[in-house]
Amino acid sequence: MDKIDLGPNGFVYPMPITLIGADLAAGPNFMPVAWVNRVQPNPPRLVTGMGKVHATNSGIREHGEFGVSIPSVEQVTVTDWCGLNSANRDADKASLFTVFRGTLEHAPMIAECALCLECRVWQVVDLGSHELFIADIVGTWTEERFLDSNGKPDITLMHPFMLTMPDNRYWAVGEQIADAWSVGRTFER
Amino acid sequence: MDKIDLGPNGFVYPMPITLIGADLAAGPNFMPVAWVNRVQPNPPRLVTGMGKVHATNSGIREHGEFGVSIPSVEQVTVTDWCGLNSANRDADKASLFTVFRGTLEHAPMIAECALCLECRVWQVVDLGSHELFIADIVGTWTEERFLDSNGKPDITLMHPFMLTMPDNRYWAVGEQIADAWSVGRTFER
Repeated sequence: MDKIDLGPNGFVYPMPITLIGADLAAGPNFMPVAWVNRVQPNPPRLVTGMGKVHATNSGIREHGEFGVSIPSVEQVTVTDWCGLNSANRDADKASLFTVFRGTLEHAPMIAECALCLECRVWQVVDLGSHELFIADIVGTWTEERFLDSNGKPDITLMHPFMLTMPDNRYWAVGEQIADAWSVGRTFER
Repeated sequence: MDKIDLGPNGFVYPMPITLIGADLAAGPNFMPVAWVNRVQPNPPRLVTGMGKVHATNSGIREHGEFGVSIPSVEQVTVTDWCGLNSANRDADKASLFTVFRGTLEHAPMIAECALCLECRVWQVVDLGSHELFIADIVGTWTEERFLDSNGKPDITLMHPFMLTMPDNRYWAVGEQIADAWSVGRTFER
């Protein structure tokens, strides 16, 4: 076997890019985060691992609420800019977007994004340099134009993008290759 | 604003497909899991949210170790089959693959997958129906043929695939659209 060990700093391939929004004293702020995913169907929960030093973390800790907005390929430059700049260094990111809110008071979301989740923190786990926010999803905000004929969000209309690390590249979504919980029925040993 | 609320059961787009391996009494077992992601750089940690009823969960709980193997587009049918069948109903999934191990005794991985992570559980959070395994990554196993000229795993050589829910579709990775922590420097308001 020709396997080699690259050490402990491995990644999953690929990771979805989101813009996580929180309210700071100066107003809403947004930070690109790829380390986010669902973890439970019901009650619907997601997690995100974020460095404690970030301004966004302090806003989430203060209010216990945050928004997850999914930017599109067309928004890659402004999204990356939000990661290169910090509210801790006076960057005003909210002015780049149309900010909206759902039912929660402190979960700012981005109207220009095709799909946004408003979240309430359920539990925080201290990981070390980062903290893990485990949150209940309260609302899923989108528009009719991003739904398929069954009323479900259609990724081919949303154009989200993904990240790979440690090569630090962004990727578009490619072709549909199969249906899940379905194509496996055709498997033959 | 034309935003509509689809309710609390929203997802991120898209989610990476992995095969999580654990040792059961009958031998190694593998289960497709899309709810997995990195959460901390150092020590390198990842999380996965998995339903407690799964056979794989019981193996992880018993040994505190598991493997994360990343299947390719070419493996979509066997991967989906692993999700349609359960070791709890006597499905033998290990016989479909060449199983290998790194330094941990109970983190089975799949040699036919381009990249595999061996993981040791650091903490378990009870979410309700699911449990969240927070784990330290111990090793990252790949082959020279999947590395780029800088010695980093190259997604264009690995061919991983992704899941969207609730439409339950699998997707290939598309084109590179930009470099991360880079393209934002060209942003002009």
